[in-house]
Amino acid sequence: MSRKQIKLAVNLRGVGDSISEWRHPDAQPDASVNFELYKQWAKKAESALLDAIFIADGLYITEQSLPHFLNRFEPVSLLSALAAVTSNIGLVGTVSSTFSEPFTLARQFGTLDKISGGRAGWNVVTSGTLDGAADNYNEKQIEHDAKYRLAAEFLEVTKGLWSSWEEDAFVRDKESGVFFDPAKMHTLNHKGEYFSVKGPLSIERSPQGQPVIFQAGTSEAGRNFAAEQADAIYSIPKTITESIAFREDMRRRAETFGRSADDILVFPSIAPVVGRTAEEAEQKYQEMASLVTITDALKYTSRFFNHHDLTQYPLDEPALNLLDLVPAQQGSLKNFTEALKSGITLRQLALEATTPRSPFMGTPEQVADTVQEWFEAGAADGFMLVPFGPFGMDDFLTQVVPILQERGLFRTAYESDTLRGNLGLHIPQNRYVTN
Amino acid sequence: MSRKQIKLAVNLRGVGDSISEWRHPDAQPDASVNFELYKQWAKKAESALLDAIFIADGLYITEQSLPHFLNRFEPVSLLSALAAVTSNIGLVGTVSSTFSEPFTLARQFGTLDKISGGRAGWNVVTSGTLDGAADNYNEKQIEHDAKYRLAAEFLEVTKGLWSSWEEDAFVRDKESGVFFDPAKMHTLNHKGEYFSVKGPLSIERSPQGQPVIFQAGTSEAGRNFAAEQADAIYSIPKTITESIAFREDMRRRAETFGRSADDILVFPSIAPVVGRTAEEAEQKYQEMASLVTITDALKYTSRFFNHHDLTQYPLDEPALNLLDLVPAQQGSLKNFTEALKSGITLRQLALEATTPRSPFMGTPEQVADTVQEWFEAGAADGFMLVPFGPFGMDDFLTQVVPILQERGLFRTAYESDTLRGNLGLHIPQNRYVTN
Repeated sequence: MSRKQIKLAVNLRGVGDSISEWRHPDAQPDASVNFELYKQWAKKAESALLDAIFIADGLYITEQSLPHFLNRFEPVSLLSALAAVTSNIGLVGTVSSTFSEPFTLARQFGTLDKISGGRAGWNVVTSGTLDGAADNYNEKQIEHDAKYRLAAEFLEVTKGLWSSWEEDAFVRDKESGVFFDPAKMHTLNHKGEYFSVKGPLSIERSPQGQPVIFQAGTSEAGRNFAAEQADAIYSIPKTITESIAFREDMRRRAETFGRSADDILVFPSIAPVVGRTAEEAEQKYQEMASLVTITDALKYTSRFFNHHDLTQYPLDEPALNLLDLVPAQQGSLKNFTEALKSGITLRQLALEATTPRSPFMGTPEQVADTVQEWFEAGAADGFMLVPFGPFGMDDFLTQVVPILQERGLFRTAYESDTLRGNLGLHIPQNRYVTN
Repeated sequence: MSRKQIKLAVNLRGVGDSISEWRHPDAQPDASVNFELYKQWAKKAESALLDAIFIADGLYITEQSLPHFLNRFEPVSLLSALAAVTSNIGLVGTVSSTFSEPFTLARQFGTLDKISGGRAGWNVVTSGTLDGAADNYNEKQIEHDAKYRLAAEFLEVTKGLWSSWEEDAFVRDKESGVFFDPAKMHTLNHKGEYFSVKGPLSIERSPQGQPVIFQAGTSEAGRNFAAEQADAIYSIPKTITESIAFREDMRRRAETFGRSADDILVFPSIAPVVGRTAEEAEQKYQEMASLVTITDALKYTSRFFNHHDLTQYPLDEPALNLLDLVPAQQGSLKNFTEALKSGITLRQLALEATTPRSPFMGTPEQVADTVQEWFEAGAADGFMLVPFGPFGMDDFLTQVVPILQERGLFRTAYESDTLRGNLGLHIPQNRYVTN
């Protein structure tokens, strides 16, 4: 089954997720810490009627970090600021459950949700603690599976805190002097494996009840966590087939947790390259690819090969032997295994690693066709637009979105004032209300 | 010594710090969660050229909490939103060092500081853990003196993180492809008693270097902490004499920590009641006082007497015997001891507890005179306006501020774009820069 219309969000990521996008002539090289620019972007996305903007995050940096990671805004503060200058678009921010406190997070997202009139979303990430993040958080250690157990308890607590007040708890009757109804104030009294949180939360529910929960896990534990807890999933599929399988799997898992399959929305990320002609799209791709020097590209690509120095190998011969450099086929390398086996060169591999080629490429009609194909095949409920280059968002919003609207596949006006309303998600019942 | 001009901040506190202010005919009873109202307030304060708005906070509530405490915005999120709709006024928010993580706090205030163009301030509070806050934070326990040791280490870490990047670290030269200068990126590598934080921070310094540090401690440990670490102090003196002594003490302590006495600004809080005539001011006071029922007032006042039921005592007889109810003269009760000894009744005491009478009361000229007197006597570098009633801020800004301006005691234009600039504070040197 597919929904009637496509949902669309855009991942705003400053100077870009690549090592060299900031060097593009049209790029603002301080974009990641330029609030005026984020404001423009958010307003453009809102003018185009997108469901949400999305802010990714990370909790540590090194000299080798991508430019955008080195120097960027913290998501909750950024989205709160953007809430004040937008009125309809959803505001989804990434925060790690591993390194946060549920009471603080529930207050901050509760505040964002109130300030925005019900437009907040929280992308729950379960930071690994064996990576650098733990170094910034008192060397807190937690295993892979335990971090999902912790995240599930964290969600349980925050959702409980967001139920602290029934909708009509605040009476505010000046005449009688009754400010609130104590019977509609609920104390959580949570004591669990990882958290002890009494409550109640010191902020009332927002018009959408509580923030929309995004998640992006792909491991077994991550999928189950998302299927049980999330309203929306950010996925990064390589192909339509993979995306259909993932979405079906998530819908099935949601049902095993007693939810409806439609309670969970899958948002594959796409980085469309749009040109007036297919050739112009290819030119735009090449223009971006050419910003990466081969030295930088090899240095970047080495992270998929245990940081092995790749400059010692020939650039323009089939590079299948690179697979021998890595003991097992590890996570990120998997994406390149097939390509290497099919005979690509090191130069081609480095190019693909630093400037991946999107299946969503071509004229506006071609890109709209691909979007429609994925949507109608059940590969997506919505899409997470990850702008390709400084022109990527504008191109998609001004050229592709109107086609989707003409085809009846995308809204021509916001249906609701809240993010849940626009996404077609129900408002979670307050857990203390039994009617 | 006193400075040339008075600094002014305003504490924005929703429905008020009293139990009944929300019942005033002009009060918006949802003020504490009404962002449009906070926006109006911030803009008014900015139009009047105030140095800063200030947001207090607390980390737990009970049924007995004041209306504003029960249901309000979280300060960092609120101030980030206000940053987007203001351009000159400082944005000072309260966050507890006891229940926060330095890396997260440094990022959030660093983001607020960047978004606002250098207008952020952090009011460091060292929440007691024997009170209800610990119940919302995994029952974390820490003793009174240790909490200041923790706070000092916390400040050390955050200030270190705010020095992660030298001012010119981000080169962003598209031609050469150099995004940043690794020699100007500094890794903190902090390992202390309470925190282990490697860094660097993933956001560059703001135009004011780092957020302004506010503090409000009055204990010996609190005073030393403020004298060593703070740029500004929020004090709550009863009299001008007390305030002069406090300010002198803090200036002297600052010097013992190797700082200049002028590096620290003392902001006594004041709640002026302004009328066209002294009688009108008295009427405004009585109007506010009358909103509190005697039952509510007694209930509220009982918190100063170990929650002893006060309704059993005569209302209109001298109430000196109430002092016997409390074993030792504890913190908050001290304020009433003198009054009780001088023979006030329980009704008068309850009135004073719920609606304290300000020494800053009368016509605009009288209030301006008192402000000037305190300032020139060395009782204050600035004042923290705590609006008395829903009209309190407007009255002061429109009637008293112009008089202070006429007298040359308050600015007629912002001196700077940053909070440090307006407060006349220097920009802290990056700790890694030795020139």
